[in-house]
Amino acid sequence: MDFIIGKSSRQIVLGNDEWSGVKKIAAKVAGDIKLVTAGDYAVTETGTVSELAANIYAATLGKSSIADTLLSKAEISASDLAGKRECYAFKVVKADNGESALVIVGSDKRGTIYGLFHVSELLGVSPWVYFADVLPQEKDSVVITEADNLVSKEPSVKYRGFFINDEWPSFGNWTFKHFGGFTASMYEHVFELILRMKGNYLWPAMWTSNFSLDGPGLANAELADELGIVMSNSHHEPCLRHSEEWDLIKGDDTEYGSAWNFSKNREGLINYWRGGLKRNGKFENVVTMGMRGERDSEVLGREATLQDNIDYLKDVITVQNNLIKETISEDLTSVPRMLAIYKEVEQYFYGDETAEGLRYWSELDGITCMLCDDNFGNMRKLPEEFEKNRKGGWGMYYHFDYHGDPISYEWVNSTHLSKVWEQMGQAYESGVRDIWIVNVGDLKPQELPLSFFMDLAYDFDKWGTSNTEAAAEYLTAWVKRQFAGQEDSFADIEALLDNYTYVNSVRRPEALNDRIYHPVNYGEADYMLQIADASVDKAKELWETFKETPLKDAFYQLVYFPVCASMNLLQMQIYTGMNHYLAAQGRPSANVYGTMINECMDRDLELQKGYYECADGKWDGIMGSEHMGFVHWNDEEARYPVVHTVIPSRRPRVVVACANNEGYTMGGDWTRRPVVLTGLCSPNSLFEKIELENAGTGEINWKVIQCDEWLELSSTEGTIAEGYTDFVVVTTNDKLPEGSVIGKFVIQAAMYKAEVYVCARNFTDEEMAIDHFVPVLPENLMPFVKDSDLELSIDAREFEVDDDPSEPGYRILDNYGKYGSAVKAFPVTCEFGKEDTEELPCITTSFYVPRDGKYEIILVTAPCNALSTDSLLRVKVAMDPEDTGDAGFETLQTVQDDYQGGERSCPEWARGVLDNQHETAFARELKEGWHDLAVLPVDPGVVIERIVIRDAAYDRRPGYLHNSPVRGL
Amino acid sequence: MDFIIGKSSRQIVLGNDEWSGVKKIAAKVAGDIKLVTAGDYAVTETGTVSELAANIYAATLGKSSIADTLLSKAEISASDLAGKRECYAFKVVKADNGESALVIVGSDKRGTIYGLFHVSELLGVSPWVYFADVLPQEKDSVVITEADNLVSKEPSVKYRGFFINDEWPSFGNWTFKHFGGFTASMYEHVFELILRMKGNYLWPAMWTSNFSLDGPGLANAELADELGIVMSNSHHEPCLRHSEEWDLIKGDDTEYGSAWNFSKNREGLINYWRGGLKRNGKFENVVTMGMRGERDSEVLGREATLQDNIDYLKDVITVQNNLIKETISEDLTSVPRMLAIYKEVEQYFYGDETAEGLRYWSELDGITCMLCDDNFGNMRKLPEEFEKNRKGGWGMYYHFDYHGDPISYEWVNSTHLSKVWEQMGQAYESGVRDIWIVNVGDLKPQELPLSFFMDLAYDFDKWGTSNTEAAAEYLTAWVKRQFAGQEDSFADIEALLDNYTYVNSVRRPEALNDRIYHPVNYGEADYMLQIADASVDKAKELWETFKETPLKDAFYQLVYFPVCASMNLLQMQIYTGMNHYLAAQGRPSANVYGTMINECMDRDLELQKGYYECADGKWDGIMGSEHMGFVHWNDEEARYPVVHTVIPSRRPRVVVACANNEGYTMGGDWTRRPVVLTGLCSPNSLFEKIELENAGTGEINWKVIQCDEWLELSSTEGTIAEGYTDFVVVTTNDKLPEGSVIGKFVIQAAMYKAEVYVCARNFTDEEMAIDHFVPVLPENLMPFVKDSDLELSIDAREFEVDDDPSEPGYRILDNYGKYGSAVKAFPVTCEFGKEDTEELPCITTSFYVPRDGKYEIILVTAPCNALSTDSLLRVKVAMDPEDTGDAGFETLQTVQDDYQGGERSCPEWARGVLDNQHETAFARELKEGWHDLAVLPVDPGVVIERIVIRDAAYDRRPGYLHNSPVRGL
Repeated sequence: MDFIIGKSSRQIVLGNDEWSGVKKIAAKVAGDIKLVTAGDYAVTETGTVSELAANIYAATLGKSSIADTLLSKAEISASDLAGKRECYAFKVVKADNGESALVIVGSDKRGTIYGLFHVSELLGVSPWVYFADVLPQEKDSVVITEADNLVSKEPSVKYRGFFINDEWPSFGNWTFKHFGGFTASMYEHVFELILRMKGNYLWPAMWTSNFSLDGPGLANAELADELGIVMSNSHHEPCLRHSEEWDLIKGDDTEYGSAWNFSKNREGLINYWRGGLKRNGKFENVVTMGMRGERDSEVLGREATLQDNIDYLKDVITVQNNLIKETISEDLTSVPRMLAIYKEVEQYFYGDETAEGLRYWSELDGITCMLCDDNFGNMRKLPEEFEKNRKGGWGMYYHFDYHGDPISYEWVNSTHLSKVWEQMGQAYESGVRDIWIVNVGDLKPQELPLSFFMDLAYDFDKWGTSNTEAAAEYLTAWVKRQFAGQEDSFADIEALLDNYTYVNSVRRPEALNDRIYHPVNYGEADYMLQIADASVDKAKELWETFKETPLKDAFYQLVYFPVCASMNLLQMQIYTGMNHYLAAQGRPSANVYGTMINECMDRDLELQKGYYECADGKWDGIMGSEHMGFVHWNDEEARYPVVHTVIPSRRPRVVVACANNEGYTMGGDWTRRPVVLTGLCSPNSLFEKIELENAGTGEINWKVIQCDEWLELSSTEGTIAEGYTDFVVVTTNDKLPEGSVIGKFVIQAAMYKAEVYVCARNFTDEEMAIDHFVPVLPENLMPFVKDSDLELSIDAREFEVDDDPSEPGYRILDNYGKYGSAVKAFPVTCEFGKEDTEELPCITTSFYVPRDGKYEIILVTAPCNALSTDSLLRVKVAMDPEDTGDAGFETLQTVQDDYQGGERSCPEWARGVLDNQHETAFARELKEGWHDLAVLPVDPGVVIERIVIRDAAYDRRPGYLHNSPVRGL
Repeated sequence: MDFIIGKSSRQIVLGNDEWSGVKKIAAKVAGDIKLVTAGDYAVTETGTVSELAANIYAATLGKSSIADTLLSKAEISASDLAGKRECYAFKVVKADNGESALVIVGSDKRGTIYGLFHVSELLGVSPWVYFADVLPQEKDSVVITEADNLVSKEPSVKYRGFFINDEWPSFGNWTFKHFGGFTASMYEHVFELILRMKGNYLWPAMWTSNFSLDGPGLANAELADELGIVMSNSHHEPCLRHSEEWDLIKGDDTEYGSAWNFSKNREGLINYWRGGLKRNGKFENVVTMGMRGERDSEVLGREATLQDNIDYLKDVITVQNNLIKETISEDLTSVPRMLAIYKEVEQYFYGDETAEGLRYWSELDGITCMLCDDNFGNMRKLPEEFEKNRKGGWGMYYHFDYHGDPISYEWVNSTHLSKVWEQMGQAYESGVRDIWIVNVGDLKPQELPLSFFMDLAYDFDKWGTSNTEAAAEYLTAWVKRQFAGQEDSFADIEALLDNYTYVNSVRRPEALNDRIYHPVNYGEADYMLQIADASVDKAKELWETFKETPLKDAFYQLVYFPVCASMNLLQMQIYTGMNHYLAAQGRPSANVYGTMINECMDRDLELQKGYYECADGKWDGIMGSEHMGFVHWNDEEARYPVVHTVIPSRRPRVVVACANNEGYTMGGDWTRRPVVLTGLCSPNSLFEKIELENAGTGEINWKVIQCDEWLELSSTEGTIAEGYTDFVVVTTNDKLPEGSVIGKFVIQAAMYKAEVYVCARNFTDEEMAIDHFVPVLPENLMPFVKDSDLELSIDAREFEVDDDPSEPGYRILDNYGKYGSAVKAFPVTCEFGKEDTEELPCITTSFYVPRDGKYEIILVTAPCNALSTDSLLRVKVAMDPEDTGDAGFETLQTVQDDYQGGERSCPEWARGVLDNQHETAFARELKEGWHDLAVLPVDPGVVIERIVIRDAAYDRRPGYLHNSPVRGL
């Protein structure tokens, strides 16, 4: 029995006493049907249903007069729905005329709405049909079968939504241009988006706008309530009034007074709050409680004690609770309320030895405690076991966009799904299940992570902790949903989205500058450019297909723009680094990069213009955030690249430079510096490279005039024209002596001589077979050589762990973090290391050290925060634990004692979120041979990404990635 | 009775047994006569003179058979000449036919030659007739009168000459191009130049050339001897052989062996030296004695003790003396010899407590000890009183050009005459009177200082210590001599030469870079640009005159090129500093400077090309030394400017910047930095200035929205077009409160606000009348303001000294040093401060301090060196000595204990010669009111240029000149 939606005219039948919001949604679903199939589905209302015709019937239990009839005709058990949150039954049934009908019954208003939008989903209509022009495939008909029948589960998280924030200049300009402001005509699209994503919750825009005044009037709030959107004001705007609103109506000659201070202006503030509760209390809200200072600042002065602040806040909340009783309901438990544990409020919540925190205060029962990440996607404190199930529960305010220290990120999406999965999973498992809200900035660039966030909150069982592949699977599914009909491109699009979000999360676009990726060290600039070039090429290739299809605009917004704009920015910053690096060596090749920088600047404008022209100008005004070279937390004084132009020497001049380190020489008699190549000491490196650049006037002949017999050079003489560069690739031949050696060749170019030293190791077959060989320089190179880029990196994917999913233990997370993999203890709230070490599974890895010496071991961990007041994200480490036993374990903290996740005053935190990692180093004297390193997280939330082992005698060379490429396109 | 040289044909009559060199010079004088008057003067020889005709007669006493006749006919007393060095009698006498004759009798060969060239001098022929194309004025006749009669004095210094050195690429290329190498045909011009300047001595070029082999063969040495030029080899080439020569003939299978080591190859070196002495001993030489390592290095290894080295050198010198006895003369005292006390030889000369130095060794008697400056024009050690008159005397090896640490100077002249006067005067007064030799590099750019050096050596009585105005007077005379006929331009040329040599000596061209003159602090970049612009304008204006005259080429070489090329380089480096400074602030005006940098680069080439084209290509190849941005001691890796290009912001952006300090703001809400103007706290500063640069897109309106009533702004609103800058001049009006105050105005530009704080002082009439007022900031500005450019500089010209020239005391030297004046104790060898202070005259200055506090006093002294082993260039200072008496004097050393003048290993010395000053700071707590500072040099050679007094509470702002303009064009 199939229900076929096609060109034939049918109806969507509702009870005439149905929620008006459901009626409006039914009309939108009818529109979706028309869009896909050209079928004309009128929405009709009725008092009763006597016979089921070949229509769609929808009703809300306990509201619609036809609900019971439908339940009975469709043979749906009322008990599947009654008393449940946001559930719906969806069933294809035989109509009385023998045809088939589709019956949807919701447990409540949003249940029915989700059920109706489930039709759209089956039609292939994306939630992003309006907000990203994802036009569905047109079809003659869509068949809904009995296999589609379902009774939905209650959503995993109670309130699920987002916060439009930092909306200037992008979202603000756009809505003023197209909707005359933050009006209901614009918000209707936002509400629809939320509902299509099965969300229910919104914090509206709040900078220079008032949700409850701008509709015009109350129209925004009324429409939200009608459509079933639960509203809150943001964390520092209590009692349903906006911070902007205060500025509008406060005044010495008003009933509100002027001071935003409950000690000095108690009555005025009570009047103000009462007004808000009276006005908006009739709608569905989560009421923001408490009080912070004006515009996100602390409310009491510096001289106030912790106890003063706690008492003040208790007073405020008690008064607010009473006001709610007075204006909304005597039954406080029926009024959803929340208190944001944000910034300084955190200490009032936790208290200290001098003052008991709010956390133990019974008046807070029933109020959802809203926690917050560190604004960069990492949890701060999470509920401890004893408070996990507190009355009122927990909320989380998460960020995909942030306007603040250390550096804002507000342009294109820079969040990788794996991070959301890992961190929101940590929150959920810790009991944060009442509110999930995410700051999406201007909304537009966050289509992908917002979709995931909403689906994760709606169905945590499916996408959450239990499935370590969830992020990848979600991406696959999401691409399929947005780009239906373009199956040939799915894999490429998926890779493009994964890559650009990886690149942007390794270093957020705004925080990029010319000094991030080292121009030569570790080859990391080259490596990142390869990713960028390949991504842009692929995006352009796909564009050739998409530009001829109805998905042209969706592809531009969801793929082409974010990929190309992100990669173009990356290229520009790396080119600038190269330009400055080469210019500092007086090399005219700097000027080639100068030209490329300018091309990138033009391309950046061109891409933005393309966005404005999308969908016939529908997006004009959006995506206008500054995104280059932030030097402060915000875009003030942001620096575009400064192009350095080199004037070549008027004399013959050659620059002989290492391709992979900073060594260079111009080979003059007195300033000759030996240039040292070290790559051939690593078993992974097959060759080294030297550049010879003509940096002067006239062509230059060069010739190798001396060379050790075990060295092979790709060429030994040549002529370099003005402005050109020759390359010499250096390898070894079978005359290479045993062990580690230093060799040399000498290049004569014009009247200059350059000495190039080559360090190499003749790896035996046994050594070559060693997987984890720590590369070292030949001995006695110091002080001739002071730093080294030789090191062994062992990424988490190579760790040995016992990952039986049925047991507590470690899971390797693929495609996570800066280096593409990580390992984490599961269940995520466990505290393995606090028990006896010998009992516990360890993360282990083995490596081989080719000679005795002191080695530095660096643990690279994700930039997470301590999740409880006594955590320092500790780990236990042991070298060769089989020899040393339990006593060999040493406890290290991966953050310092004074570490304060999310606090702008903590440089360690700030560096961590910018660099997207923490590093913890320790040293060990090691004998030649194999060693086992065991690592064991102690505190919950430690995520280990990489272990680096290197000769401690040499400084580490500067770099951002520091080692071999970790991913490719 | 006049002798008229004109068109009529006359003769220059010589004895037929006259020195052949005199005959050759006579022919050159005849050529000069022809050049000036077109008169045809044949050189004729005769055995006797029976009658004096209307001719020029010349003879050398004791050589020419006609000398006695001439003495008697001209009534010249033989005793005026007999036994004297290089003297001549010059007399217009009545000829036997009633006309007049000119009689010249020399006491020796060079005496006669100088006498003959004295004719040329009177004709107006410059010594630079060949080497700078200084063509004499053509005249119908030149009248020599009895007033010209003279008997010349013996020259002040015995051997006076120069060293052609560091001759590649410039001089070397030129002579190969035009003379096929370092041949006699070229050297003849050099010898002639020396003789015309009344010099007698030469160290020939020595890098890849051999004076005694290149003539070809001995031709150079033979010609030198014939013309009366005394030759030496340079300081490290003993026994008349060149260092290059050793490389040519050494060898294991030769009689010379291969080792340049007297311990290992005694016989070989003896053979080598004997060969040189035999070959060249017949000519007039000063034989270089001793031995250094090959190519200017130390001869013994590191393990050798001081005594080892002294013994080694004694052995070498003893052997060399014996070889001279064997090959040249048993009477060693008749053979001029010299030992260079250069670099490491200095310690062998002075010895220490473990080893007696050579200075006390009798075998050295009769050998001239050749001292050396620090290669940067400052004396190192000078003879002490007890050794002033040692047998053999003293020589000085001075530098106008240097190829070595810390940074070479080899391009245009960078020596100011006042320095030569002061330092060579110090040497002469200390007894250095036997040899003066100066390194002139490529010779060509050193026409002016070389002329002065030679004349100073020839007639110290006239130009030396007794005349503090000598340098200025010399410049006047020199300009007059080179540019005769262009009287209207004399003053301008003099100013141009004085200015460019001042600018080049304040910082030598090669040592200039974009970080020397601070782009804004102290207004010093602007100030230097004003000098440069005015100089270039004036030079161009004069060129319009000279280009139509025969002096065109001389003007180009002596004035136009060095002025314009120096100033162009200065402009280029300052523009680069501005370009980088503005670019770092994101200001598009940087790009204007970028264009100007490129124009300067082009101009540099154009000026060099002009030089090559001078005199029909005669100078092609010369003046080719690298001269930009040295980063090492030599030109390797020298950096041309790197042009920074700013891309304007795509948003509205305004940069509000102080014109005279580094403060700037873009006025964003969060990054707003107050900008602080401090100039109005100084009684000398009448206004301050703010720049408002449009650094973004679209025009920007600005307006002053708040301003203290006592501030006057030149404008209070405006509109700045893209890429333009507005200026606001800030002054005070009569509402300015009393005392020191801080005011403020606020500029609103687009959405930005800039707060500008203005510190000012309302100077009372009494305060305005105070000459030396120490400007201070209002109190309580810290930490808001951390550094200050406010300071009082009192230049030496303002010091109070007792300068009665008849008494020991202080002389103010005008137009000396970095700030244009200095004070020095005279006689220059006196040691005032070693006696009781109360007895002695002091240098004093008074200043006024407006409030109690700690003040820093900085003594700025010339970058001189300690002149004896126990000197630390000490001074005594006393604050308010009338109150404190003798006890108030404190002794300060102006150089550190480990200071080593001229040693590359001494950074204090290196910084001093680059920065052209030493600074010595001390602090005093001072009460409000007047204070007297007394300063008293203790060690000889201290030259005080400036005293700076400043509030010690603030750091000093970086700068190179640090304070108000000291000179103008």
